[in-house]
Amino acid sequence: MEKIGSRTVYEGPVADVRIDEFRYEDGETSERQVVEHPGAVAMVAHDDLHVWLVRQPREPVGADALLEIPAGKLDVQGEPPLECAQRELAEEIGKSAGEWRELKRFYVSPGLTSEEMTIFLATDLADAEGEPDPGERIEVVPWPLSELDGAIEACEDAKSLVGLLMLSELLR
Amino acid sequence: MEKIGSRTVYEGPVADVRIDEFRYEDGETSERQVVEHPGAVAMVAHDDLHVWLVRQPREPVGADALLEIPAGKLDVQGEPPLECAQRELAEEIGKSAGEWRELKRFYVSPGLTSEEMTIFLATDLADAEGEPDPGERIEVVPWPLSELDGAIEACEDAKSLVGLLMLSELLR
Repeated sequence: MEKIGSRTVYEGPVADVRIDEFRYEDGETSERQVVEHPGAVAMVAHDDLHVWLVRQPREPVGADALLEIPAGKLDVQGEPPLECAQRELAEEIGKSAGEWRELKRFYVSPGLTSEEMTIFLATDLADAEGEPDPGERIEVVPWPLSELDGAIEACEDAKSLVGLLMLSELLR
Repeated sequence: MEKIGSRTVYEGPVADVRIDEFRYEDGETSERQVVEHPGAVAMVAHDDLHVWLVRQPREPVGADALLEIPAGKLDVQGEPPLECAQRELAEEIGKSAGEWRELKRFYVSPGLTSEEMTIFLATDLADAEGEPDPGERIEVVPWPLSELDGAIEACEDAKSLVGLLMLSELLR
């Protein structure tokens, strides 16, 4: 498969849209719509007692308050995901972590968008200074680690489910 | 949070883009970009020996062949997810299932798109007639159930990870 053409058809505040043209090995060609995204990170941050979650409005799905693991978009395409994760952990839950480990990289919806998500395990937590982005409405939720199954039940987004299910396997 | 305005800014072959305006409880307002999506389904289909996966090109992420659980987009907004799952299971892997169970509903990227994914567990499998959509390049991959951890390792997309991690918990 080879990309033989690409044109931007919409430029948006969060993501642009391209129409790309591909040629396959058998010579056939097709056009695909691609929602461009710089990539994102999410953090499974826990200590002995809690896994640290957030609640925030998610306008695209009409939700006043979705329970999620902390996460953020890369500031620029090519920003190292670990640096972004460290910044976002401080901004979203006011914590730093002494231990970082990459748990998994994956595409959130590979038929629709280039968005790639990197999930980190963040442990050895300490309080940190962090300023939330203006306009973000984030409530910090220390969720009891002993009730991890309840968090998996309550979460409704892909990255939180992948992160918490992997944590559940690790803690087993 | 209340939606007080909405305009379509791009109409695409897979997904349109809207700019919606919201008013929050404190009176502030903001505009959000929303990638519209009718929703999708994915199927964790297994028998005693195999979990049934597929390999297909995913142009938006530049992948020649991504290993995934079978999945498909709702044909129209409001199509019952179970009907879509039954159709897609036949089309993608040529199977029907005697037992269906909804495992989880979630948003793939709730800061970007309205896409909601419903994952089903499909068991009691039998051969079925199904015609792949023209233009789909799908290879059916019967993956040994005894090597489920390897599938979780090899998969790189959100729905497959959520589905296979939940299967792993169920089989434990």
